[in-house]
Amino acid sequence: MFNQPMLRDDALKGKTIVVTGGGTGLGKAMGTYFLRLGANLVITSRKLDVLQKTALEMEKETGGKVLALACDVREYEQVEQVLNETLKTFGKVDALLNNAAGNFISPTERLSANAFSSIIDIVLKGSVNCTLAFGKHWIKEKQAASVLNIVTTYAFTGSAYVVPSACAKGGVLAMTRSLAVEWGKYGIRTNAIAPGPFPTKGAWERLLPGDLAQKFDFKNRVPLKRVGEHQELANLAAFLISDFAGYINGEVITIDGGEWLQGAGQFNGLEAIPNEMWDAFEQMTRSAKGS
Amino acid sequence: MFNQPMLRDDALKGKTIVVTGGGTGLGKAMGTYFLRLGANLVITSRKLDVLQKTALEMEKETGGKVLALACDVREYEQVEQVLNETLKTFGKVDALLNNAAGNFISPTERLSANAFSSIIDIVLKGSVNCTLAFGKHWIKEKQAASVLNIVTTYAFTGSAYVVPSACAKGGVLAMTRSLAVEWGKYGIRTNAIAPGPFPTKGAWERLLPGDLAQKFDFKNRVPLKRVGEHQELANLAAFLISDFAGYINGEVITIDGGEWLQGAGQFNGLEAIPNEMWDAFEQMTRSAKGS
Amino acid sequence: MFNQPMLRDDALKGKTIVVTGGGTGLGKAMGTYFLRLGANLVITSRKLDVLQKTALEMEKETGGKVLALACDVREYEQVEQVLNETLKTFGKVDALLNNAAGNFISPTERLSANAFSSIIDIVLKGSVNCTLAFGKHWIKEKQAASVLNIVTTYAFTGSAYVVPSACAKGGVLAMTRSLAVEWGKYGIRTNAIAPGPFPTKGAWERLLPGDLAQKFDFKNRVPLKRVGEHQELANLAAFLISDFAGYINGEVITIDGGEWLQGAGQFNGLEAIPNEMWDAFEQMTRSAKGS
Amino acid sequence: MFNQPMLRDDALKGKTIVVTGGGTGLGKAMGTYFLRLGANLVITSRKLDVLQKTALEMEKETGGKVLALACDVREYEQVEQVLNETLKTFGKVDALLNNAAGNFISPTERLSANAFSSIIDIVLKGSVNCTLAFGKHWIKEKQAASVLNIVTTYAFTGSAYVVPSACAKGGVLAMTRSLAVEWGKYGIRTNAIAPGPFPTKGAWERLLPGDLAQKFDFKNRVPLKRVGEHQELANLAAFLISDFAGYINGEVITIDGGEWLQGAGQFNGLEAIPNEMWDAFEQMTRSAKGS
Repeated sequence: MFNQPMLRDDALKGKTIVVTGGGTGLGKAMGTYFLRLGANLVITSRKLDVLQKTALEMEKETGGKVLALACDVREYEQVEQVLNETLKTFGKVDALLNNAAGNFISPTERLSANAFSSIIDIVLKGSVNCTLAFGKHWIKEKQAASVLNIVTTYAFTGSAYVVPSACAKGGVLAMTRSLAVEWGKYGIRTNAIAPGPFPTKGAWERLLPGDLAQKFDFKNRVPLKRVGEHQELANLAAFLISDFAGYINGEVITIDGGEWLQGAGQFNGLEAIPNEMWDAFEQMTRSAKGS
Repeated sequence: MFNQPMLRDDALKGKTIVVTGGGTGLGKAMGTYFLRLGANLVITSRKLDVLQKTALEMEKETGGKVLALACDVREYEQVEQVLNETLKTFGKVDALLNNAAGNFISPTERLSANAFSSIIDIVLKGSVNCTLAFGKHWIKEKQAASVLNIVTTYAFTGSAYVVPSACAKGGVLAMTRSLAVEWGKYGIRTNAIAPGPFPTKGAWERLLPGDLAQKFDFKNRVPLKRVGEHQELANLAAFLISDFAGYINGEVITIDGGEWLQGAGQFNGLEAIPNEMWDAFEQMTRSAKGS
Repeated sequence: MFNQPMLRDDALKGKTIVVTGGGTGLGKAMGTYFLRLGANLVITSRKLDVLQKTALEMEKETGGKVLALACDVREYEQVEQVLNETLKTFGKVDALLNNAAGNFISPTERLSANAFSSIIDIVLKGSVNCTLAFGKHWIKEKQAASVLNIVTTYAFTGSAYVVPSACAKGGVLAMTRSLAVEWGKYGIRTNAIAPGPFPTKGAWERLLPGDLAQKFDFKNRVPLKRVGEHQELANLAAFLISDFAGYINGEVITIDGGEWLQGAGQFNGLEAIPNEMWDAFEQMTRSAKGS
Repeated sequence: MFNQPMLRDDALKGKTIVVTGGGTGLGKAMGTYFLRLGANLVITSRKLDVLQKTALEMEKETGGKVLALACDVREYEQVEQVLNETLKTFGKVDALLNNAAGNFISPTERLSANAFSSIIDIVLKGSVNCTLAFGKHWIKEKQAASVLNIVTTYAFTGSAYVVPSACAKGGVLAMTRSLAVEWGKYGIRTNAIAPGPFPTKGAWERLLPGDLAQKFDFKNRVPLKRVGEHQELANLAAFLISDFAGYINGEVITIDGGEWLQGAGQFNGLEAIPNEMWDAFEQMTRSAKGS
């Protein structure tokens, strides 16, 4: 059932939603579901050809309307241009999904300051630029709206080997909680999703080339022993963007099967102990150390 | 729209769900929505007469089937009895909603050790008893299942004047995260909801008698300037219990309009500053203190 | 240097400090350091003979004064008795260290409701009883004071296989944050420490009998590749109890070498990748997945 | 006592510590205490004249040795220059305190993308640049070291009206937790402090000009009813940088008197209720709502 759509038909009817990084992977999966629920869609990325191909595909699959716009989210003027084109085409915009991202996997000491900086620009400044441009518009127009940011569990736990991304996503998380409060009075809700392992062919092969993917099997890190399905993420994203989540604000929802908790909890590694050993220890451990 | 049901019809078709504290207030609202989505329902509390009246009402309203069972969740044998009666009536059980609770509002130093202890017994030990009894059953039967615990935002922030409840809910939150990992391999998901202000006539009048409710207006504590609607909580609860949330595990989702964040953020109080004052300060503050 | 005492001599001069579970292990280590810093000490546990032996040892080692009192922290009257005896001997009491604890290591579904309950009683209700009795006294006497609670990192992350302890410590953590706010106005600070692996011979052998300890080597879970020294914990505890930490309130300080973070961060497992592999991947990964 | 130095004499003897933003305010207070404890000090900021004046003052006051270096932390080459000058003067460097910061107080929708961006550059990229340059050096030299980052409580809670700073500090917090794990194996500890209200004349007047400071009295936001003393922060910083904190890694320690918790906890506002009203309610509320 977890690859089935969950919301009632027309849950996003008449909404116009902008998805950055919307041409591929998870952005494409979420956007496609928004269309199915009746939304108009704008997708952006730096690669117009990819976007246009995706837009055609999406329209054919869903019967919805998709606007594909090239945009480097690091450039505020380009973001404003997306806003203007969106308004020209659809008359209004109701929601922004900050999904565009970049990442390196590398020991941090091997990174140049420039490489580090470029991820902050794409992920953090890009999200800031989009949120600022759309927020100014909504506040001026006194229009209720919804912002959804895609972060990661390491936005709050941190993570080695992806430190530029961790810094940037940590910043986006703080923005989420800050604007949820500051802009709540304008009817603008701001939330985030922290997805665990949702493999996308292209991105994961780029991120974990060659043997790396095999060396690092995500399934074993997850209590539920599986990775996520794209529709599961799309269900959650559609819910959070929709009016059905009208009282959820400033929240980051983790959807990772329990992955980060499995690593974090001090005695979780005892899962390796077989039942027979527990049988043997059962009597021995039945004495509280208490005082 | 936020008082409309959100999930597709039959989202809980064929599921049997047990709701403790299900006779009144939020438990009743969530249970009623589960019935609408096709579930069989078991409601428990210490007051059988209230339960039976609610059960009839629910059945009439939804056409679903409701079993009302008296149960003091502090007594493990009574909880086991609920499990047995549920299996006898519905053949199986798929989800447990730990909703039963108790609370005092009081300066902590005015509480007796007994009064403090009684809240821990109802809220923490009660949730433990139910989860333990149902979990043992599911693991023995190798059946996938879902546990949902109702906590509060002060389970993680703490709160003055409701300290016994804070301790107990903090314990339930730790149980949520612990069992999500430990029992994930059995296909048992465990999650929690931390609701902000969702007033229920009876409970709130008991909790905040007389002038207290007026002295302490929750709306002003919420960026969205309103309290929550019961259907909003029911939507979230039904989602988390359903298979649509199959990859959410070990998570606590806050639905409070941003209430706790509004209090927590250091400069959020500046909302009191009028626009004209910001106009005046605008130039003055345009100098980074940086270095 | 990390097994050297850190605070200035006489940092706790004239303070009377009560340490529950003070006869062995970490409680003994912390208490001994408090004595060195000039404090009077009261140690309690259920085993008077162990306590009295420890008290003599401590007095000989430090030249300080130690009162050993049998007390089952689950019994409020016994806790009040400790308070009274302390006042009789030392005239006043300045700080409470809630250190008494109990634990089982076991799959949760193998535990009886009674076994689970007993840990909640010792750890959570025990800490509540002590804090309540001493707090009432301090508030009545208008005396500034300090409460320090020993929790664990799984009080916030949860942990499998020690779920009763996780629930109880989660509750103590919520009490810490709640009373820090509620009792701050009385000059009572409340804080907590979450220690990572600080092995104590007796307790660890009881907790991880036989092969278990070897199967589960804590050192590898810690970025710093070592377990903690008792003096390191004692230094932190003495600091938090002392007036030098007068502006730290409601805080839980983790001292675990980074253990929980190492498990939690999504890509931390890449530490297993050798340098040569990073060399090979270096060029390949130098392409942002960008937007 | 809370404005007295706490660590044993010579606790930082022979250590060389670099403090960015070290010419004024809290950076100056922390640096001065490091000198008192026997450290060599390097202070940097963009204003060489201020730095040099401070350096002379510090040397006179403490008898220690201070190197003043102009540095715009946004420029990686200038940071490398600081490292080189430090090595030239003191032979080695043992610790980095990322304290340089910038901030605007403003409704977010009034900020330009450029203004927002400049704070991210100073606070986040500046901290990254320093940490990267020093970390590469330490790893190459196989030298143990310590990094301490000054963040804020709104790095994790978020805050309205200081959103650029919140984003940047949120990023620094994620860096703290990430590198604590990744670089722990090299003997590099990474921690952070989240200070609450520690007023510094210059900075606060710039940040809260005119009536703003009065409108927004921090004392009332703190359970302990006072702001922090600079020495209290200096004590904590010296402890964390010293080897005495050798097992604290990846931790952010809040020192705010309980400020953020007071805002966050749902019922903390009931402090406004007078004792007589509690007396009246006492009997009424003595009935658990439980079930």
